Amino acid sequence: MLIKSIGEILQKSIELGKVKIAIAKADDEEIKLVKLAMEKNLADFILIGDKKKIKKSLEENNVEFDENNIIDECDSAKAGSLAVELVNKKQVDIPMKGLMHTSDFVRAVLNKENGLRTNKRLSQITIFDGISDSIQFLTDCAINIKPDLKCKVEIINNCVEAARYFGYSNPKVALIGAVETVNESMPDSIESAVLTQMNRRGQIKDCVVDGPLSLDNAISEESARIKGIESSVAGRADILVASDLVVSNTFSKALHYYANKETASIIMGTKSPIIMTSRTDDMKNKLNTIATIAYIYHMSK
Amino acid sequence: MLIKSIGEILQKSIELGKVKIAIAKADDEEIKLVKLAMEKNLADFILIGDKKKIKKSLEENNVEFDENNIIDECDSAKAGSLAVELVNKKQVDIPMKGLMHTSDFVRAVLNKENGLRTNKRLSQITIFDGISDSIQFLTDCAINIKPDLKCKVEIINNCVEAARYFGYSNPKVALIGAVETVNESMPDSIESAVLTQMNRRGQIKDCVVDGPLSLDNAISEESARIKGIESSVAGRADILVASDLVVSNTFSKALHYYANKETASIIMGTKSPIIMTSRTDDMKNKLNTIATIAYIYHMSK
Repeated sequence: MLIKSIGEILQKSIELGKVKIAIAKADDEEIKLVKLAMEKNLADFILIGDKKKIKKSLEENNVEFDENNIIDECDSAKAGSLAVELVNKKQVDIPMKGLMHTSDFVRAVLNKENGLRTNKRLSQITIFDGISDSIQFLTDCAINIKPDLKCKVEIINNCVEAARYFGYSNPKVALIGAVETVNESMPDSIESAVLTQMNRRGQIKDCVVDGPLSLDNAISEESARIKGIESSVAGRADILVASDLVVSNTFSKALHYYANKETASIIMGTKSPIIMTSRTDDMKNKLNTIATIAYIYHMSK
Repeated sequence: MLIKSIGEILQKSIELGKVKIAIAKADDEEIKLVKLAMEKNLADFILIGDKKKIKKSLEENNVEFDENNIIDECDSAKAGSLAVELVNKKQVDIPMKGLMHTSDFVRAVLNKENGLRTNKRLSQITIFDGISDSIQFLTDCAINIKPDLKCKVEIINNCVEAARYFGYSNPKVALIGAVETVNESMPDSIESAVLTQMNRRGQIKDCVVDGPLSLDNAISEESARIKGIESSVAGRADILVASDLVVSNTFSKALHYYANKETASIIMGTKSPIIMTSRTDDMKNKLNTIATIAYIYHMSK
């Protein structure tokens, strides 16, 4: 079944049933989110952090919450490890980063003994409603700063795997550049050409890769036609791969601030799904992220 | 006087009176634009190209046009030189690129003997309506692929000069990065820190420069507050400087395709203003560009 909008993900996720989430370092902002997610029947929670503060915040936000589901642990690293441990013990479904440094949380997730590590690379994907009736995937907006060729292959593989959960089998993958031509003075355009050919040779599977394509050529059939680009990806891309973090971050922030698009953020490469939101995400996007990860959790079981 | 929207630029430009534009290689698309600009009382035109084809296209589009203002010249390079020459002879105000390669047109503009060359670098700026009640300037989306430190200084200087025409004296300049912190593994963040300090030392004048700032920190006061960034630029940037062409191109295309923003494109660094539109620009944005360059022409006299 093809998921066509962020709204549909939220709906499906609720239909599939509640998940149990452990938040490492739940602070005031997370309590508001917990309230919202519980009201929507999206999830139940274990809250790890300063128990006194958490109880106070729950009261202030009028959240009815079983005290037994609060774990008193103020240390960030320990709170992170605990959230991951609860998943490995099958006491919760998904660990979630609260008010702590991303690096502390990722360290707990990648811990060799008690973590959720696999042999895959971690990468991030932002999901949003495209210009036509479908969702689009933009990667990587958070983790890999300046991916080299090998890293890009892994980022693409992770995103192709993610897209499949939403019904996008054999997705069209556009490698975003400044122009659609290969140019020696643009190293990312060289890599894009190489990745396209690797896909043709079966070294990147289960998708159709094409690049370089400028954003308009990737998403607008009209723009691709004017430029005379012969490609099954051009104008119809499902997945947009950014050349680096400045491109993806700027693009995703433009979607939020100028286009007022809702987004959801997912992390791939772990044994089971994890939730990481950003401090500057608004409540709606944080909820979208929880719903999307819960949806993936159900679909990957 | 502070110009606050693209709509206002169009209005002001019409009020200031018609300019005379020479189009090098006017084809069918340009004739539609000529018709629109003439109807709006924005400009009169000299059309250079295949006279027969131009006459046919004028007829088909029902444009009343004095045949003496058509110059028969099919060669791109010669048509470009001719348009520039007419400006130098003060027979027209502004040369404009028609259906020809950018490189041919730029070569004519930069010709040492008959061009519009200065000792400044050419750079491009995209203007659009910001999220609050003002226009914003994004640079460089078209010419400088991967500007180094020296080039970025010139790009900033050009944009500060352009902003002044629209009433933005001492503009706030944000250097866009993936994050707001300096990070050795992000070379553009290092350059941003250096440029910020150069501005403090008076090596970049008539503006306030700050970076690195991620896009949200640059344009949203709320986002800057959450991140605790102390800066007079953060959340209030007038000018957004991209680290390279992939960032700026993707950003500007996102504005068009996802946020449905109108844009205008200007080129700085020449003796007098020039018009360059892209084949994939829509008619509205091409008209905005003509109006904006005409406005600058009037203001710089």
